[in-house]
Amino acid sequence: MTDTQFQPDSGNTRAYSGKAITIDDIEAAAVRIGSEVLATPLLRNPVLDERTGARVFVKAENLQRSGSFKFRGAFNCLNLIPEEARARGVVACSSGNHAQGVAASAQLLGMPATIVMPADAPLIKLERTRGYGARVVTYDRETEDRDAIAAALCAQSGATLVHPYNDPAVIAGQGTVGLEMVAQAAAFGVEFDHVLACTGGGGLSSGIALALASRSPAALFHTCEPERFDDYKRSLEAGTLLSNAAKSGSVCDALMAETPGEIGFSILRRLAGEGVTVSDDEVLDAVAFAFTELKLVVEPGGAAALAAVLSGKLSFAGSTVGLVLTGGNIDPRMMEKVLSR
Amino acid sequence: MTDTQFQPDSGNTRAYSGKAITIDDIEAAAVRIGSEVLATPLLRNPVLDERTGARVFVKAENLQRSGSFKFRGAFNCLNLIPEEARARGVVACSSGNHAQGVAASAQLLGMPATIVMPADAPLIKLERTRGYGARVVTYDRETEDRDAIAAALCAQSGATLVHPYNDPAVIAGQGTVGLEMVAQAAAFGVEFDHVLACTGGGGLSSGIALALASRSPAALFHTCEPERFDDYKRSLEAGTLLSNAAKSGSVCDALMAETPGEIGFSILRRLAGEGVTVSDDEVLDAVAFAFTELKLVVEPGGAAALAAVLSGKLSFAGSTVGLVLTGGNIDPRMMEKVLSR
Repeated sequence: MTDTQFQPDSGNTRAYSGKAITIDDIEAAAVRIGSEVLATPLLRNPVLDERTGARVFVKAENLQRSGSFKFRGAFNCLNLIPEEARARGVVACSSGNHAQGVAASAQLLGMPATIVMPADAPLIKLERTRGYGARVVTYDRETEDRDAIAAALCAQSGATLVHPYNDPAVIAGQGTVGLEMVAQAAAFGVEFDHVLACTGGGGLSSGIALALASRSPAALFHTCEPERFDDYKRSLEAGTLLSNAAKSGSVCDALMAETPGEIGFSILRRLAGEGVTVSDDEVLDAVAFAFTELKLVVEPGGAAALAAVLSGKLSFAGSTVGLVLTGGNIDPRMMEKVLSR
Repeated sequence: MTDTQFQPDSGNTRAYSGKAITIDDIEAAAVRIGSEVLATPLLRNPVLDERTGARVFVKAENLQRSGSFKFRGAFNCLNLIPEEARARGVVACSSGNHAQGVAASAQLLGMPATIVMPADAPLIKLERTRGYGARVVTYDRETEDRDAIAAALCAQSGATLVHPYNDPAVIAGQGTVGLEMVAQAAAFGVEFDHVLACTGGGGLSSGIALALASRSPAALFHTCEPERFDDYKRSLEAGTLLSNAAKSGSVCDALMAETPGEIGFSILRRLAGEGVTVSDDEVLDAVAFAFTELKLVVEPGGAAALAAVLSGKLSFAGSTVGLVLTGGNIDPRMMEKVLSR
């Protein structure tokens, strides 16, 4: 792991500029994590096809171990930590899904985990992270610097920091979602024209885009972000890294990264098509649609790609579309709110 | 269809006593309905394995077209109606899932459908049945005879009655669930020791039991029923058809059949193992577990087999268990109630 590990004080360009992530890294990750990761289904739904005029395939990563795709990248990353460093454990910053992915991975590998989480993270995510045996340290999203807190924790204990997205091992792990989608689409006898996933720091999106570029090169990948947190869309259009002014206030608690990850951005500027921005209302409508029609429990941030497809902002009529439902860790209170709208 | 069609006035023993349902009927059904039925996934979940000490595989028929397995039997049955009888349409009695299965099937085949539904059926089931273009006729579960209403409708219009379970074509269609489960388990490299499904009139249960008997003969099938509606368990133990005293009052609106279907009973008395009865509380706990851990939307009746496995009433520790989540058509108000318990 030492040549790919995130270095909080170095800007983390060393590993990536030295060695680009390739399809081989993603395939190696698939083998490495295959015994514990769940091969989530690629689902069809006639109502969704009728609503969109497209042939839509839904990758249900909300059914993944720990309740989101984040387990893939975290488990790949932790497996690459050298034996002698494992007893010192891991530290991660996360609003909740990376937290659970790291905590579940650490539990499987018998490593201690400390997770730095915003105090306003959904209660279910705080509880479930503790449920995997991790220690949780909370911070104030508006006033405190989570990276500084994490760096201090690592300095104290010698733990390894597991970045949620700006780490080649994490991106390679998330990219296994794309590998599986392409293979599952082939089993249906189709190839994707478009693939959409929600985009926070861009670990999942860049991993999928890399997998598609090698295994389904005609497929165009689209980032999906909440309004006010559309840093990827704006950065990709501007050709340079731009930040969001807002730090909180979206229903998509999982998608409030401040700036694109450098590695993810460098990949997506080569490989991504037009991005889509969705409103809170569109996201909550998608959560309700997933409940009512797909019979799937999806959290707001996990429904951004579905919201993008349902919104009709890009027309996919007549085409074959893959979308990822990324997580299902929704607070029951939030679901009650969605269902009573 | 004429030699297998349910005859409301004849006791419907003619078709079945003349020709037993075989694995060939189920395989023919799989081919016949394959273009429209969804091959629902067989899912793993580590939390479920940990809770039960078993290796549990969940067949997610709540993700089926129309929101439940009922589409399989209904679509198989309607496809067998001769061309010349199709314009006169179909009539069905159902608390909601068979209604939607028949209505969705009729819509696909361009046939008119009239569904006789209890007035206290969940609102979502009434609405969705109408949403597939069917006419809905309601009746009072405590005081009116739905079979008489349906027979009168058929006499008026010449429509074909589609019985929810006591029809060989329906049972063969539902049996495709069992065929798929065995094939999907084989893809995981396992064979089932036990398989559980909820049991109303017994169409699904007898179809699955038949499929297992041919394709996975070491697997033991168990009926799962709500308290006060355990007519199958009691009938199988007594060796004769027994009825329930209650006609309403379970949270499992889908499982309140009064008496085992004759065909299903004749199959399950040969092939079923010990039955399980679950309480309303156990069922609602299972609905909550499906939401929180499996990230699946399941209605109470659809969660009876999960409730049976979670209840520990039969011990499955160390064994390989398949269970069917049969439907996901839950009223949002009911889910709010479950989540706020």
